[in-house]
Amino acid sequence: MQVLRITRPGGPEVLELEERPAPAPGPWELLVRVRATALNRADLLQLRGGYPAPPGAPADVPGLEYAGEVVATGSLVRRFKVGDRVMGLVGGGAFAEQLTTHEREALPMPEGLDFPQAAALPEAYLTAFDALVLQGGLRLGESVLIHAVASGVGSAAAQLCRAMGARVFGTGRNAQKLSRASAWGVEKTLLCDASPPRFAEAVREATGGRGVDLTLDLVGGDYLPETLRAMAPQGRVLLVGLVAGSQVQADLSVILTRRLRITGTVLRSRPPEEKMALTQAAERSLLPLFQSGALAPVVDAVYPMREAREALTRMAKNESVGKLVLRWE
Amino acid sequence: MQVLRITRPGGPEVLELEERPAPAPGPWELLVRVRATALNRADLLQLRGGYPAPPGAPADVPGLEYAGEVVATGSLVRRFKVGDRVMGLVGGGAFAEQLTTHEREALPMPEGLDFPQAAALPEAYLTAFDALVLQGGLRLGESVLIHAVASGVGSAAAQLCRAMGARVFGTGRNAQKLSRASAWGVEKTLLCDASPPRFAEAVREATGGRGVDLTLDLVGGDYLPETLRAMAPQGRVLLVGLVAGSQVQADLSVILTRRLRITGTVLRSRPPEEKMALTQAAERSLLPLFQSGALAPVVDAVYPMREAREALTRMAKNESVGKLVLRWE
Repeated sequence: MQVLRITRPGGPEVLELEERPAPAPGPWELLVRVRATALNRADLLQLRGGYPAPPGAPADVPGLEYAGEVVATGSLVRRFKVGDRVMGLVGGGAFAEQLTTHEREALPMPEGLDFPQAAALPEAYLTAFDALVLQGGLRLGESVLIHAVASGVGSAAAQLCRAMGARVFGTGRNAQKLSRASAWGVEKTLLCDASPPRFAEAVREATGGRGVDLTLDLVGGDYLPETLRAMAPQGRVLLVGLVAGSQVQADLSVILTRRLRITGTVLRSRPPEEKMALTQAAERSLLPLFQSGALAPVVDAVYPMREAREALTRMAKNESVGKLVLRWE
Repeated sequence: MQVLRITRPGGPEVLELEERPAPAPGPWELLVRVRATALNRADLLQLRGGYPAPPGAPADVPGLEYAGEVVATGSLVRRFKVGDRVMGLVGGGAFAEQLTTHEREALPMPEGLDFPQAAALPEAYLTAFDALVLQGGLRLGESVLIHAVASGVGSAAAQLCRAMGARVFGTGRNAQKLSRASAWGVEKTLLCDASPPRFAEAVREATGGRGVDLTLDLVGGDYLPETLRAMAPQGRVLLVGLVAGSQVQADLSVILTRRLRITGTVLRSRPPEEKMALTQAAERSLLPLFQSGALAPVVDAVYPMREAREALTRMAKNESVGKLVLRWE
């Protein structure tokens, strides 16, 4: 099979197509022919050598999500059969023609989605679902602030909030990209083109002075102190990314007096039992919303796999809205 | 009745004994003759004018906890009768000979405790119980780090951890005070007499490299970055106090990669339904542990009410171990 291999630490230019033997599925595993995969910022980190693959995932082939067809099954597999269309998260190795995955970490592709759309789904929607619902405990009628709302996770989170009856506000650094957000249910967008960003006052005003109940923060850095000022009493901040950096200077007193909760979260490094549990919860709660049309993956562009470098370069430039997808031809 | 009134913003010297009419209980309320009350750091803040009483509490009489006897009951009261010995938290006004409280915010005094011991109980143990158990989800076999372990809340939290089968480590700035901690179940104390404090390495070593599952932080300030480094994956930090200050410079990446959760919490400003819920949960879960002897309030000293200034001065000097109690003679 062909894979996109990291030949040395660097930028998108270090990826090369090469041949290697296909993996063999274990007893609980599916062998999947990958039809499409999608990009994540973590791929850029991994190319630079800064985000090593967890045990069990190929060390030199990036790719955290896929959509494709089951081509073989291990002896204990019961949930899927050869020919089924599946999608899911993997610890790495999705930039390949084939991969193996535990059957409880794979999801059936929703009817009506093609492979590129399905490949754009797992990381964005499972991250948003896990953060907003499973960890954030989002409830009917609450208000949510989403940083980098035009990103893959951001657009997925906005749709999910709308589907759950929550009000959504979104920040971004690009007015043109933000103009897309109303289509995902975002009530008000807040352009943050200065440093430090200013959005807390506008958020408080839009919520009658109360602030938001939940923030999904993909940005970190100097957004955090301002985020704390935008929170309602007992508000929850889910820290999912640090695009703006990891160093922060903050005032802890607002965390106490407003009784805030800040939770950091990542998916990739989780142990298998947690990945399976998330996948199973998503199958029950999230997938029906794709059938109904309440959720629809936002795909910025679909590139053939041989143009992966161009796609990664586009992501690095922050030009995309939603997900960038790679497709085997 | 007599009260200790805040005559102007300042230190302990601004408190004066004076006469005022006793309050009248509402339909759901108890009128309590206060026999003893205890000091909290919040009292010093309130004296300086920095921590105003919540609505419904006297604005000029400090005091957040009490033990005493029911002397009258409102028409709807069912849980207590005149003569019952009760204790509890109030939003303020416990430095008085009488106070009123909702019957669902009052607790029966455990058998075997006298009034000064019972007055030392509510704030310390309900804060520790709420933070460790209700919010922190402390489980059997977990490990806990308690900052300022020789304080009232610290000693209560340590006893509670021991009673729940958790391992306890504690920090403090005074070796003599820390020497008391083994009696409360603290396995290892960590003297922090330099700034910034250093304890993460010792905590990780004592936990086989893993770190602690939960930290009860009464200190904040420059303890927080070091606390983050001392946490196990999915560890929970409960921020309960900011004795070391509220400004912090921290690295958010450790919050993400270890999937940490930081929760700020205060009791005093909570709405009545939450105070009642906490009181009722404490009656079910916490009070039996005083009957059995697993928990025992740590009383540093008992002062007559007319020496409240001396007691507050001792607290301000950080000389006490456990709680300082005031008693009406």
